[in-house]
Amino acid sequence: MHSPHFTAQSSSDGMVERDFTVGDIPGVLWSPASGGDRAPLVLMGHGGRHKKEPAMTGRARLLVNGCGFHAAVIDAPGHGDRPRTAHDERDIAASRAAQATGEPEGPIVVPYNARLAELAVPEWQAVLDALQQLPEIGADGPVGYTGLGLGTAIGVPLVAAEPRITAAASGMHWPDALVETAKRITVPIEFDMQWDNERIPREASLALFDAFASKEKSLHANAGKHFDWPRFEADRAVRFLARHLVRAGTSAA
Amino acid sequence: MHSPHFTAQSSSDGMVERDFTVGDIPGVLWSPASGGDRAPLVLMGHGGRHKKEPAMTGRARLLVNGCGFHAAVIDAPGHGDRPRTAHDERDIAASRAAQATGEPEGPIVVPYNARLAELAVPEWQAVLDALQQLPEIGADGPVGYTGLGLGTAIGVPLVAAEPRITAAASGMHWPDALVETAKRITVPIEFDMQWDNERIPREASLALFDAFASKEKSLHANAGKHFDWPRFEADRAVRFLARHLVRAGTSAA
Repeated sequence: MHSPHFTAQSSSDGMVERDFTVGDIPGVLWSPASGGDRAPLVLMGHGGRHKKEPAMTGRARLLVNGCGFHAAVIDAPGHGDRPRTAHDERDIAASRAAQATGEPEGPIVVPYNARLAELAVPEWQAVLDALQQLPEIGADGPVGYTGLGLGTAIGVPLVAAEPRITAAASGMHWPDALVETAKRITVPIEFDMQWDNERIPREASLALFDAFASKEKSLHANAGKHFDWPRFEADRAVRFLARHLVRAGTSAA
Repeated sequence: MHSPHFTAQSSSDGMVERDFTVGDIPGVLWSPASGGDRAPLVLMGHGGRHKKEPAMTGRARLLVNGCGFHAAVIDAPGHGDRPRTAHDERDIAASRAAQATGEPEGPIVVPYNARLAELAVPEWQAVLDALQQLPEIGADGPVGYTGLGLGTAIGVPLVAAEPRITAAASGMHWPDALVETAKRITVPIEFDMQWDNERIPREASLALFDAFASKEKSLHANAGKHFDWPRFEADRAVRFLARHLVRAGTSAA
């Protein structure tokens, strides 16, 4: 097992950003400039775009500057700096067509994201192995997960498969491919939905939240459509992770 | 219009507690020891007990010490230091009997609490008038409301009737007597429910949340039964109020 291969480094406002690869998977690790010695690590799953989309850089800043944590994200298969297959191209075209015509997206997005998740879960596990080789992270520190949309489609099977992850903030996805997996998850969960989501039916979101077997789980439902998701939920997710990961771990900000 | 009549004062850890009456309504006002000059005021509705139940003193400390706000609560009719009528005694006995036998409580609690709310709304308005006479509060400062259970049965009609209240955190009640009133409320709302509540059916809680006309409303549903309501929701409610009342006001902690 090897540490990640770092390909670029920059820093601003107390946060160090390091691009890395693990095999052919590109990722980025944000850490406190002060080192973040054996601080908790949060794995972040991006939405429709890539590892440095604003949702990821914004959460990284909250986690690193606000909590003293490390935060890492990788490009999902077919996203960001990764090649797209012909299958990816077909799925993307179909989902754009559904958005344009107002057809239900679930029947297209659910199998597409399930296919990506099947590829992404072992990738994440290899990346976590590699990140835990770094002395500033270590093999025994607390690990959390956060991600919405595609980040949930990948996150639910990842959290179910990966006992190192002890708390997860997710949401904004259909239950169809995820319910049975969610039933095996028992770690604390915070789950977001939009109450008036025009893409994901209300009952679908409630059903996915209902499926988690976690003794501690919180649903946050906010008024508004899919893209009205309020940014204060990012702060709440970070507080939720901080509460569980600091409690679980030996290091704290 | 007169200020409240103060009957007792004490202080601890930076918080001043003043018992007061407005007419025959007993209440308590908590304020920062530093004065809290024209800081936001949060009206708090207690649950089944009285104005100094632990949920109230705990929230007061979060609001006063954490935010620099004032916090006030009054005994609901038939609660705490107030006389009970024969009607109160009958309703209380019926609701205890339902709890003991496991019968549905809604048919008893809903009309009981609705009767109390009808009395309590004008009482709260008189108390707010009086508190706003105090120079450290003032007539033009931001006002919020927080309360669960009976605090919601009274809070929903109070918030609907009272334009001075600009944000409210509530929850844990049946929709039956409140839905039509909730539809007139447009200020930001944070609403709590317990996902596995054995007293208030899940669909009932979702229906009450759904009824609010507020453009900004957040539902927080936590795993567990009625009394498993997690205390971190008190912190969240206080943060929610702080976000809206500080934004709305001229003074901040």
